[in-house]
Amino acid sequence: MTLKQLLEPSKTRVNQFLQQQLSDYPHLSSNLAAAMQHGLLLGGKRVRPHLLFSIGELCQANAATLNWLAAAVESVHAYSLIHDDLPAMDDDELRRGQPTCHIAFDEATAILAGDALQTLAFEWVSQPLPEVSAQRQLKIVQQLALASGAQGMCGGQALDIEATRQQLSEQQLAQIHQHKTGALIQAAANMAVLAGNDEAQQYLPAFSRFAADLGLAFQVQDDILDEIGQTEALGKPQGSDSAAEKATYVRLLGLQGAQQRRQQLHESALHALSTIPYNTTSLAQLANVLLNRDH
Amino acid sequence: MTLKQLLEPSKTRVNQFLQQQLSDYPHLSSNLAAAMQHGLLLGGKRVRPHLLFSIGELCQANAATLNWLAAAVESVHAYSLIHDDLPAMDDDELRRGQPTCHIAFDEATAILAGDALQTLAFEWVSQPLPEVSAQRQLKIVQQLALASGAQGMCGGQALDIEATRQQLSEQQLAQIHQHKTGALIQAAANMAVLAGNDEAQQYLPAFSRFAADLGLAFQVQDDILDEIGQTEALGKPQGSDSAAEKATYVRLLGLQGAQQRRQQLHESALHALSTIPYNTTSLAQLANVLLNRDH
Repeated sequence: MTLKQLLEPSKTRVNQFLQQQLSDYPHLSSNLAAAMQHGLLLGGKRVRPHLLFSIGELCQANAATLNWLAAAVESVHAYSLIHDDLPAMDDDELRRGQPTCHIAFDEATAILAGDALQTLAFEWVSQPLPEVSAQRQLKIVQQLALASGAQGMCGGQALDIEATRQQLSEQQLAQIHQHKTGALIQAAANMAVLAGNDEAQQYLPAFSRFAADLGLAFQVQDDILDEIGQTEALGKPQGSDSAAEKATYVRLLGLQGAQQRRQQLHESALHALSTIPYNTTSLAQLANVLLNRDH
Repeated sequence: MTLKQLLEPSKTRVNQFLQQQLSDYPHLSSNLAAAMQHGLLLGGKRVRPHLLFSIGELCQANAATLNWLAAAVESVHAYSLIHDDLPAMDDDELRRGQPTCHIAFDEATAILAGDALQTLAFEWVSQPLPEVSAQRQLKIVQQLALASGAQGMCGGQALDIEATRQQLSEQQLAQIHQHKTGALIQAAANMAVLAGNDEAQQYLPAFSRFAADLGLAFQVQDDILDEIGQTEALGKPQGSDSAAEKATYVRLLGLQGAQQRRQQLHESALHALSTIPYNTTSLAQLANVLLNRDH
């Protein structure tokens, strides 16, 4: 099974839900609404919603509640991409083959759309949700906030900017990935467990560990695929040229070292699953397909 | 009593609290931390915290809880100013006589600092707070989110951008102000009541009405002071020159009409207070000083 096939049902589910919620939303400005929709529905694999749905179902969370939580996580993810693409940041004109938000609209609108998508995530997780106690829902909001801000995604992005052209240790590289992308993936897992039944709460650390290992292994695999892609396409040796500017696992550990690191993380992720007395085959399958993908 | 004197105790209280919380915060990036601190502690009258403290005390809310709520409201306000000042938005190099965030740091850092300050507000309101039930605290989070996003502050900002050089009706102008600045002022009042005792909850609509009227009257007074300042300083007739680009109450209603409108809003605010069986003198005093200020 390919990654695309595996993620397809979750992708359809979250995209339909997002489309519906954005069209029902009482927007003040149709221009801002269009830019938010552009950012949120431009595409994307929807790995985070798939992880959240899979864990939430194992923990017997309410399906409607999971839709809202997945929508909130994707809204934070979408806002971060819109702002990362801005001229002052990565200055990207294309994402997933489409014009980025500040190209399709303008820079001011893209800044505002990112801002409003972040807020929207907190509107969604703080509204009344089926079958979640208020105590647990507050923890869900807290998870999302901690994962997104200065001690999570934003902090990781700041570290990443500072690290450009610097020599990093593997630990520093891991720290960047764990915050810039890992924190939100881990939050998606934690939020799904928190929406689940009482019994499931004791397995929160194990699900969280699984998500953290999976998130980091995904980044290592990204670096490996970049390297293989470059070597195959351009016939260049490993770690040369443009890759020299940016620290990667392959650059730090070599191709074989990076593959070993990915393998260790994959094993650690599966070990975390082994401590959970549910049928976690769907999560093992996600890890397998995600970490053995070839593009 | 001047506005500065009236607000001084609340300003000292919230500034000390913000300073402490930012220095205790587990920042990942010291550069991002410095930019967030710059945005949050650059100055400001702290009208929102004063309103929140005053209403919260009348409703017998816990003082520590009120500090967190005021800090969150100011964090949203500070993020919005950092992003408004960006080159793609208002392109301002100075605010309160100091370099704006993207001047003191750089544009990428200013975007990230604004993003992280918004998240920080939601970290603060979703953490365990003394003497607030989880149900009520969720409503507090919801109030802050609704007031900040596409149906609140961000939506108002988008409308304001679209309105530049357009002919607006008074209703449209009010809509912009009510969302761009009014929504967060109203949310500060609502959050204070929600943190209060059970009995106070029935007066939420009245406190909310007071805050909405006060917020809009404040904008009308701003327009009046701009006009008087221009006329006095430059000897120009009303509504001329640069003022022609932007709709204001004076332009729409004339100076006398704007003064009448402010007076109506002031009366409506006091009427709202009259329906609350607490000693609301401090709020009446705030309205009086705020709406009769001469600079």
